[in-house]
Amino acid sequence: MKLVVGYDGTDFHGWQVQPDRRTVQGVLQTALSEMLEEPVEVAGAGRTDAGVHARGQCASFRTERSLPTRAFVPRLARLLPSDVRVSSAEERPAGFHARHSARARRYAYRLLHRDDVLHARYAWAPRRTFEPERLERATRVLEGRHDCASFAASGGTASTSVCRIHRARWSRWEGGVQLDLVADHFLYHMVRAIVGTALEASRAKQPDRAMSDVLAARARTRAGPNAPPQGLSLEQVYYADGEGTP
Amino acid sequence: MKLVVGYDGTDFHGWQVQPDRRTVQGVLQTALSEMLEEPVEVAGAGRTDAGVHARGQCASFRTERSLPTRAFVPRLARLLPSDVRVSSAEERPAGFHARHSARARRYAYRLLHRDDVLHARYAWAPRRTFEPERLERATRVLEGRHDCASFAASGGTASTSVCRIHRARWSRWEGGVQLDLVADHFLYHMVRAIVGTALEASRAKQPDRAMSDVLAARARTRAGPNAPPQGLSLEQVYYADGEGTP
Repeated sequence: MKLVVGYDGTDFHGWQVQPDRRTVQGVLQTALSEMLEEPVEVAGAGRTDAGVHARGQCASFRTERSLPTRAFVPRLARLLPSDVRVSSAEERPAGFHARHSARARRYAYRLLHRDDVLHARYAWAPRRTFEPERLERATRVLEGRHDCASFAASGGTASTSVCRIHRARWSRWEGGVQLDLVADHFLYHMVRAIVGTALEASRAKQPDRAMSDVLAARARTRAGPNAPPQGLSLEQVYYADGEGTP
Repeated sequence: MKLVVGYDGTDFHGWQVQPDRRTVQGVLQTALSEMLEEPVEVAGAGRTDAGVHARGQCASFRTERSLPTRAFVPRLARLLPSDVRVSSAEERPAGFHARHSARARRYAYRLLHRDDVLHARYAWAPRRTFEPERLERATRVLEGRHDCASFAASGGTASTSVCRIHRARWSRWEGGVQLDLVADHFLYHMVRAIVGTALEASRAKQPDRAMSDVLAARARTRAGPNAPPQGLSLEQVYYADGEGTP
C-alpha cells in the first residue's frame, strides 16, 4: 500500500521512530496497527527532521488484511491526531517501497520578509533582509548534476553525494518567497544548508559565482549555516509509475 | 500607551481575562506588570473569541513608570510566550482607549478550497465546495449602513446592532479565498455568522438577493451557522489620529 501523508512537524521529533519520542512514523504505525489488527511497519520516502513539515510525504507498508482501499482514508482520519493527515491510499505491487522506488522529491522552503505570528510556524524570517532576484541568481546554478557534498551534514545515509537537481527556483507567496527544490535524492540537511548558503550568496557581489564556489569546494565548512527547520516542507514524491514527473 | 499585538489564538481561551484560563489579555497583563513592576490593566480593541487570531489587535494601558518607548517591544518579546508578539509600542494621550477610541476594525476570514494540514490552523475548509464569484456577489450587498441583528449572537455588549460596513470583499490567497470586512464596530460572532451565511447564499440562485433577505429579516435564526473560529483574524484597528483609514 502507498499512502500520501501530510503533517505539521512542530510537535514531532521528526519522521523516524525513536524510543519514547513522538514521531510521525510512530504515530502512523500505531494507527495502522490498530486499524489492521496486526503489527505494521511503515517506510517513508523522506526522513524529515524535527520541526520539518510535509504535505506530500509518501509512506508504504505491507499488510495481509484485505480492506477496501477507500476505507483507509476515513478510518485513519479517526485514529490519527489532528497534526497528521492521510490524503490518499492506493494499492501498489509488492515490490513498491516509498523510499527505494522514489525517483525524485520536491521540498519547499519558505522565507518571510517580516516576522508574522500567523506564519512563524511554517516559515522563517531571517534577521537580515533579502532580495528575491538575488536569491534566484544564487540557486539557479544548482540545477543539473553536481556533487553536493558542500551541503551535506554528517549523519546522512546516502551512498553518494552526487545529486541530480531538476529544479531550484524561487516563487513569491503572500509572506515572502519560497524555494522549490526538486532532486533525485537529498543529503542530510541539504535544503536547509542550501537556503542558508543562498542567503549568504545573495549578499555577495555575484550571487551565482558565490554559490558556484561553494558547490565546487565540496566542503561543508564553505556553505552557510542551516536555515531552521520550520520553513521546510516535503511537498511531493515522484515515482516511475507516472504519478507526476519532476 | 498603545500596543499593536499579534497572536496565534489556537491555544488561548480568547482575548478576555477569565479565571484559571489562558487568555491573551491575561498573558499580556502578566508580562506588562512584571516589566513595569506595577499592576497593569490592558484594554483591547476587539474581544476575540477562543481560537480566533490577530495580527493587528490594539491594546492600551496606563502606567506611572517612564520607560523609553522603544524598550517595550524587545523587553516584551523576552517576557511573552511565542504565540503572542507585540510589534509596536507608542505613547498616546491620557484619554486614549483601544476600544472606545477605535473608529473601525478590519477582520479577515480565510476559506480553504481543500483541507491542508499546513493551513488548517489559520483557515477553514468547508465540506461543500464554493464559488468565489458567488461569495463576492453575496457579501457585496453588506457594504453600507445596516441593522446587522441577523448576524448578532446573544451575549454581545454592543449598544446598537446598526453597523457601518466600509468593506466586504473577497480576495484570493494560495489556499483559497479571504473575506476582508471593515466596519465601525462588530457584533458578537458577526464575521463568523456572515461567512456561514455567505456560503449558504452563494448556493442560492441569486446570492445577493439571498443575503439581502437575511439582512432585512433582522433575525439570527435566518442567518447561516457560524463559521469556525480558526479562519478568523483581527487584522487592523483604525483610529482617528490618521493611523490608516478604512
